[in-house]
Amino acid sequence: MINAGLIGVTGYAGEELLSILLKHPQVRISDLSAKIDKEQSIAALFPKFKNRLELVCHNPDLNKTSSSCDLVFLALPHTVSMNFVPGLLKKGVKVIDLSADYRFSDVKVYEKFYGVKHNDRANLAKAVYGLPELYRIKIKKADFIANPGCYPTASILGLAPLAAFDLVERDSIIIDAKSGVTGAGRKIAEGFLFSEINEDFKAYKVGVHQHAPEIDQEISKLAGKNVKTTFVPHLLPLNRGILATIYANKSKKAKNKNIIDIYKKFYKSEPFVRVKEAADYPRVKDVVFTNFCDIGIKEDEDKVIVISAIDNLLKGASGQAVQNMNIMCDYPETMGLV
Amino acid sequence: MINAGLIGVTGYAGEELLSILLKHPQVRISDLSAKIDKEQSIAALFPKFKNRLELVCHNPDLNKTSSSCDLVFLALPHTVSMNFVPGLLKKGVKVIDLSADYRFSDVKVYEKFYGVKHNDRANLAKAVYGLPELYRIKIKKADFIANPGCYPTASILGLAPLAAFDLVERDSIIIDAKSGVTGAGRKIAEGFLFSEINEDFKAYKVGVHQHAPEIDQEISKLAGKNVKTTFVPHLLPLNRGILATIYANKSKKAKNKNIIDIYKKFYKSEPFVRVKEAADYPRVKDVVFTNFCDIGIKEDEDKVIVISAIDNLLKGASGQAVQNMNIMCDYPETMGLV
Amino acid sequence: MINAGLIGVTGYAGEELLSILLKHPQVRISDLSAKIDKEQSIAALFPKFKNRLELVCHNPDLNKTSSSCDLVFLALPHTVSMNFVPGLLKKGVKVIDLSADYRFSDVKVYEKFYGVKHNDRANLAKAVYGLPELYRIKIKKADFIANPGCYPTASILGLAPLAAFDLVERDSIIIDAKSGVTGAGRKIAEGFLFSEINEDFKAYKVGVHQHAPEIDQEISKLAGKNVKTTFVPHLLPLNRGILATIYANKSKKAKNKNIIDIYKKFYKSEPFVRVKEAADYPRVKDVVFTNFCDIGIKEDEDKVIVISAIDNLLKGASGQAVQNMNIMCDYPETMGLV
Amino acid sequence: MINAGLIGVTGYAGEELLSILLKHPQVRISDLSAKIDKEQSIAALFPKFKNRLELVCHNPDLNKTSSSCDLVFLALPHTVSMNFVPGLLKKGVKVIDLSADYRFSDVKVYEKFYGVKHNDRANLAKAVYGLPELYRIKIKKADFIANPGCYPTASILGLAPLAAFDLVERDSIIIDAKSGVTGAGRKIAEGFLFSEINEDFKAYKVGVHQHAPEIDQEISKLAGKNVKTTFVPHLLPLNRGILATIYANKSKKAKNKNIIDIYKKFYKSEPFVRVKEAADYPRVKDVVFTNFCDIGIKEDEDKVIVISAIDNLLKGASGQAVQNMNIMCDYPETMGLV
Repeated sequence: MINAGLIGVTGYAGEELLSILLKHPQVRISDLSAKIDKEQSIAALFPKFKNRLELVCHNPDLNKTSSSCDLVFLALPHTVSMNFVPGLLKKGVKVIDLSADYRFSDVKVYEKFYGVKHNDRANLAKAVYGLPELYRIKIKKADFIANPGCYPTASILGLAPLAAFDLVERDSIIIDAKSGVTGAGRKIAEGFLFSEINEDFKAYKVGVHQHAPEIDQEISKLAGKNVKTTFVPHLLPLNRGILATIYANKSKKAKNKNIIDIYKKFYKSEPFVRVKEAADYPRVKDVVFTNFCDIGIKEDEDKVIVISAIDNLLKGASGQAVQNMNIMCDYPETMGLV
Repeated sequence: MINAGLIGVTGYAGEELLSILLKHPQVRISDLSAKIDKEQSIAALFPKFKNRLELVCHNPDLNKTSSSCDLVFLALPHTVSMNFVPGLLKKGVKVIDLSADYRFSDVKVYEKFYGVKHNDRANLAKAVYGLPELYRIKIKKADFIANPGCYPTASILGLAPLAAFDLVERDSIIIDAKSGVTGAGRKIAEGFLFSEINEDFKAYKVGVHQHAPEIDQEISKLAGKNVKTTFVPHLLPLNRGILATIYANKSKKAKNKNIIDIYKKFYKSEPFVRVKEAADYPRVKDVVFTNFCDIGIKEDEDKVIVISAIDNLLKGASGQAVQNMNIMCDYPETMGLV
Repeated sequence: MINAGLIGVTGYAGEELLSILLKHPQVRISDLSAKIDKEQSIAALFPKFKNRLELVCHNPDLNKTSSSCDLVFLALPHTVSMNFVPGLLKKGVKVIDLSADYRFSDVKVYEKFYGVKHNDRANLAKAVYGLPELYRIKIKKADFIANPGCYPTASILGLAPLAAFDLVERDSIIIDAKSGVTGAGRKIAEGFLFSEINEDFKAYKVGVHQHAPEIDQEISKLAGKNVKTTFVPHLLPLNRGILATIYANKSKKAKNKNIIDIYKKFYKSEPFVRVKEAADYPRVKDVVFTNFCDIGIKEDEDKVIVISAIDNLLKGASGQAVQNMNIMCDYPETMGLV
Repeated sequence: MINAGLIGVTGYAGEELLSILLKHPQVRISDLSAKIDKEQSIAALFPKFKNRLELVCHNPDLNKTSSSCDLVFLALPHTVSMNFVPGLLKKGVKVIDLSADYRFSDVKVYEKFYGVKHNDRANLAKAVYGLPELYRIKIKKADFIANPGCYPTASILGLAPLAAFDLVERDSIIIDAKSGVTGAGRKIAEGFLFSEINEDFKAYKVGVHQHAPEIDQEISKLAGKNVKTTFVPHLLPLNRGILATIYANKSKKAKNKNIIDIYKKFYKSEPFVRVKEAADYPRVKDVVFTNFCDIGIKEDEDKVIVISAIDNLLKGASGQAVQNMNIMCDYPETMGLV
């Protein structure tokens, strides 16, 4: 069994992570912390955990956490994680960081899109991008994981076979993505009030969302060339779930190929990717509260449409983090997740 | 035509009031203000009003408002209204105040439940409680209206015939009320975030809600004796609407009476109260976006159950305010409201 | 004043149409019918209309309707309208048909997508496609209007300036559309149950939706050449509203043009189209319960993204039908609609 | 390990039961059936189970089911279960019936409220009412469980200490209950369409709901005398969850007692009942997706208000069924449920 800690338990991703870890047969939850007004039991913070876990949540404290944990999850806001990572790694603690702080190979892209200077460049190169479907072998040997963003997980899994086999024109990719509200975290702002979002739907950060360069980085790596996608996120009036509808023009290499078959082969051994048959498409309802990514494909002569759905809090955040932990610790990859 | 002003246009009640006034054939909207960072057009504040109204919303300014308006609506938070009322009344402007500041005959009740000292006791006695079904004649002659709260409107209309004719035991009244989220105003707090309210339901302020004494005041007046109801509000995951389920034990006077008939007679000439037939009950959907209060009644041998439904922003706030304006100005009572 | 009738009042579009007509100062509602089990008052069918309209809803009866009405709205399912149109027109009654039966110039396209034979080809040529922004002059002189579909209204208005001025490559247009549930009508099927749709989101009829050829017909007319768009509709868990996110590659003609300015000029005199400034985008909340279409535009070097939002029951159905009636009857175009 | 079967997997309770059983470490799912058009894999019926379970769902077949199962869950509509129970029991299969068919000691009450003749009176006496908090010892020895209804579970757990210790006046109990939509099952009817329920709230079956006599039966047993409660259910626009607000007048025995303490003692050893501290109340969000019942209490001088919340599909149906299975099979009571 592993002693696991969690810094940032009060956000939606942290709360979800705690739910998973509580049911994980190989995890002892050793330490919980978050920026809070006063130390209190986790049941006082979240009544839903009453009778399920007796543990006090304290304010972040590197020594306390590193002395009691083998592995620590960071469910912190972007730009906050990098204040904890160096200390934890130094103490020999494994780290899975759910923020964006270590996702980018090119620190300038991070600094541009997140609007801050990166203050731990030393550890950037150590981080493995935690998308098991692409980087399982590296994750197995890693001590430090940069867990992918929610939109990137849905989008990259939706696009990976197309990019890897050069099946679409690289400048033609459009990702029309829709996310439930927990994707934004527990942000207290007028725009996230119930009466503002309920019975509403809108696009936001059109052409400027910080997940766009994360998607482009990974798709470019897969394609072996620079790819710039068009990414438009939208806000759905529901709690959980992302559905991305992806459009691209077929390349010459796609001629006479059955794209669904290519996807099926690509994801054949993946425990958490389900490719649908022709004329069958994913829906949010089938993936929420699971760690699955469902993918459906529509081809016509010139275009391919891929629809990809995940639970933003699970495969898009905390579920994937536990999947990464399972791989790092040599547990069955689906343990605690199905 | 009347020149009407509105202080506090940025809250939900203010926004709704503006929507109604825009369609009212006898109203010229002369002045809009609210506590805002910088003066801007109403279309900039609310894109939905673009192409419908060209007017700048300024910060509250008593002189500006009183010089351009015959009548002013105050859609301000409780305890803020009383800073504007004396000045407006002094200038001869008619005032309809949607806050609770002038609803109580007994200022001590107000001070206890709203937690502040009242600083305009002088005008308390001038205020007419703006529930047309009970006080139409007084409203007709009034210059200053204290517009009722949303829960009180639904509850008092639901109980009035029972109280007026002494049909139930006075200590047996239970009001189990459920409200949509706009009832709380545009309050930026964690508890009102979409992901907190969506797919949730809960009671709140059990036994301590500030609308309870307002209900008791009016029911006691109707009954001619002190009545203390049991009032429990709940928060519904929807934008608009209140439904109150009211329980009471029949008194001796109710024996051999048909209570539905009594309600029908009581509300016979009321344009905005609809009493349902036996075995037919109100639903929120039938009253939202209208100024109606729908009432359904279930009798058994000992008990009577009354279900009362309104739109909290219309009959429970802004619609009723315009109904009061119509009465004060001798316009047809339903003008601009159906 | 005009005597207006409505066949098919029990669907969502019919119910909405009745709401509008009730407030329209130039309309006397003379006749209401629908396929119902037994004749009953409109208040019995829709409690929300109680105290607002006393009229019996009968089963469809051509003679009854045509003898009492100057103009009749048909809010009937596709393939049903064409059974009523010939008779009504013969009697000299003006008709606004909200179904798809007369929207297509090419009857074969209709027969393919709606899966039936058209049995009133004679009147097909008489029908004017009721999109005022494109066909106002024809509508003015028409006796018979084929009211556009909801997705087509949002999509065509979003694309019209691009198509008319040849600003995008004709094979590059992608319409990723999202609609509230009333768009499907009051269809009693498992897929439309609350628990199936709430907290879900999905694409449907991918590449085979019957509104695609309607959009293509109108965009092709505007462009003066055959255009085939890629159209993917999605189902939103909300009652009302459509938001279409439209992507296209710029053509050479778009170089050095300010597309927002072109849209502003194109829609300058339109009472119901609002073009947004750069970096400002429509949201469903701003258009529901209004007849407006809000349009926002994002340009980059090669692509243009247009976001278009309407209320599917108003500008997408019943509101537009009344707008057409206003034009046909020489009433102010916005009468009863703002 | 146990071989478990499930008849009626296609309803909401059946689907939920399957989800739980899939994660239960002591259960082998041996047989699935339901009334369906054609036999198909469970993944074809419910895409969310793809990659998680390979099993064909057949039409109900007593021989097939009884030959492969040690225990069978019946998630069937009321009045259908009693056609399967006798055959299963005869073959020595243990049965947990989620319908109401065997919940009533007095068959006449059942026949009155469910409107049918009971055709298996022989087995009525064998059934144990499966509320572990009241009947754990009997359940341990039982072969046949009548699993309680959802409203009754929330209401009885909320009232049990008051009834058992005679703390309230028996004719004063009012249960104002609110349920999410899955409580009604996957019923295809206009009233359950998304657009009918979303943004609506209403009472239904006022004074005539079939769960009222079930509650009264159990409360009467606890009280040792006939109790008739007033029960009014309401429909919440959310998928899962019940919250019951219960009002009662204190009896003399309640004087000088601390009711919260009495509840805490009463439920001290219960793994799935959580009693809240004073001024803290349950919310649906804390119990959905769990098997907990949360209870909060408000006392004033004369009245007690109890608020009780459960997930209608878990503690109110399938979770409780598995809790019963755990007890019957000597597994830890919380196995597979936390």
